[in-house]
Amino acid sequence: MHELIIIGAGPAGLAASIYASRYKIGHIVIGNMFNGSLPKAHLIENWPGEKSIKGSDLVAKFFEHAKSLGAEVIQEEIAGVKKEGGGFSVRTNVNKVYQAKTVLITVGTSHRKLNIPGEEEFLGKGVSYCAVCDAPFFKNKTVAVAGGSSSAAMSATMLTEHAAKVYVIYRGECLRCEPIMLERMQKNPKIEIVYNTNITKVTGQRKVESIEIDKEYNGQKSIKVDGLFIEIGSVPSISLIKELGVNTEHDFIVIDQSCATNIKGVFAAGDVTTGSNGLRQVVTAVSEGAIAVTSIYKLLKGG
Amino acid sequence: MHELIIIGAGPAGLAASIYASRYKIGHIVIGNMFNGSLPKAHLIENWPGEKSIKGSDLVAKFFEHAKSLGAEVIQEEIAGVKKEGGGFSVRTNVNKVYQAKTVLITVGTSHRKLNIPGEEEFLGKGVSYCAVCDAPFFKNKTVAVAGGSSSAAMSATMLTEHAAKVYVIYRGECLRCEPIMLERMQKNPKIEIVYNTNITKVTGQRKVESIEIDKEYNGQKSIKVDGLFIEIGSVPSISLIKELGVNTEHDFIVIDQSCATNIKGVFAAGDVTTGSNGLRQVVTAVSEGAIAVTSIYKLLKGG
Repeated sequence: MHELIIIGAGPAGLAASIYASRYKIGHIVIGNMFNGSLPKAHLIENWPGEKSIKGSDLVAKFFEHAKSLGAEVIQEEIAGVKKEGGGFSVRTNVNKVYQAKTVLITVGTSHRKLNIPGEEEFLGKGVSYCAVCDAPFFKNKTVAVAGGSSSAAMSATMLTEHAAKVYVIYRGECLRCEPIMLERMQKNPKIEIVYNTNITKVTGQRKVESIEIDKEYNGQKSIKVDGLFIEIGSVPSISLIKELGVNTEHDFIVIDQSCATNIKGVFAAGDVTTGSNGLRQVVTAVSEGAIAVTSIYKLLKGG
Repeated sequence: MHELIIIGAGPAGLAASIYASRYKIGHIVIGNMFNGSLPKAHLIENWPGEKSIKGSDLVAKFFEHAKSLGAEVIQEEIAGVKKEGGGFSVRTNVNKVYQAKTVLITVGTSHRKLNIPGEEEFLGKGVSYCAVCDAPFFKNKTVAVAGGSSSAAMSATMLTEHAAKVYVIYRGECLRCEPIMLERMQKNPKIEIVYNTNITKVTGQRKVESIEIDKEYNGQKSIKVDGLFIEIGSVPSISLIKELGVNTEHDFIVIDQSCATNIKGVFAAGDVTTGSNGLRQVVTAVSEGAIAVTSIYKLLKGG
């Protein structure tokens, strides 16, 4: 039986492994570092110390660091986790079972998708799920934001600081964002809000050139844009760990200040949690990974 | 009037500047990046992605990153901060005054010192204030820990995972740590607790060779050690910002999940705060810097 199984090999999981190795906590990491949202990010320009780095290169650096301290990373997929025999047992897709006294869940999220033609094809070629990450690439360009939440409004406003023009395309009658954010968008001459409209297709040659919509706008059923930011929420990847009975809020795992869940011995860190005031970045993920492992160390040593 | 003044140019302040530049928040950073505790750390081996890097090199990388995004870093020292005219005014040691709508305090801490001969001289040559950082450098060596808190106990236990022998030197009759941690130390054959004793001097040639104590132990008034970990607490550097009236707990600035203090417009991040469950690391500092600036962005934009 291991002392700790870390589920997930993204920034939170790999940072946790680095800290666990330094605390000499006997642990394994289960997950594929290329499956998360970081390796899919075009360029990361907000990881302090790296002016610009590919998401896949950054996660590879974390992986190398963790490996250099002796981390055993098992490239299998989780099939289920349950409480068993004073600890936890983790079953993977190849039907292996691993056991540990404690579990750290760092399975991340996947961005909710529009599921329209062109969305997958133009990912990184104009389609983005992260304005904080990619806004500066659209200097003086025209972009669209899909969504009506505060997060979509925030993204639209942030985009106007780089882009020349930002369309906000929302399927509903009224935006779901806070009124003051709506007011701010309405006052911003760069923003144009298109209500009651769904985006049906992303088109272009090598990169995004326009979006098709299901309702005429200015007499057209398409809008020319250089980019489309899809801001319709994130989906925590928690289906396989639900049987543990951890408390969730909109499917994000509820953690306390120590990154503990409601189940003793089960901790969580990174994008899958309610931590870090809802900011889901590489810096917040690694921080939660470190905090979680420090708490696990205290628990294992009876502190 | 700036939108934001960041006070302090360590990991939290520089990460905050990186995020502020990306949010296009008009800001300045006041502080000297070589004055903090990171540049004084020997080697940093727990910043994910860098297997081993000098503290001063790491902070320089953060600095270069912040500068590349246009950060204006003013290398002056803070003399005072006060609320004034709908914002805040920050006075520096050269009697200049800077004004901003919001303030982010990232002034860090300094480790509480024993103030004994040799302590300063052997810093980084056997004397350390951070077991998490430096424990692995003492593989199979003999070390002493000064202090009796839970943090000292945690450090001693962590050190036994690398060192051959760990003396805990405490001035009092009973350790102040949690009972279960004391029990754990008492059961650990590598740990020897020396009560009612003060360390009076650190001696050696080029590096630490022994400590002198004020009471005989095994018939000697000195103990041969290769390292001394001073774990007697941290002192937040908040004297100059106290007039703002921010709430503190043991002199650490109390922040909420958004890194806001009790004073509207005043935020705090990094080692000086009560955040991150009390874990004070580079990863937690940069994370709080990012969270704070995201909150400041929302406040400035009326979100």
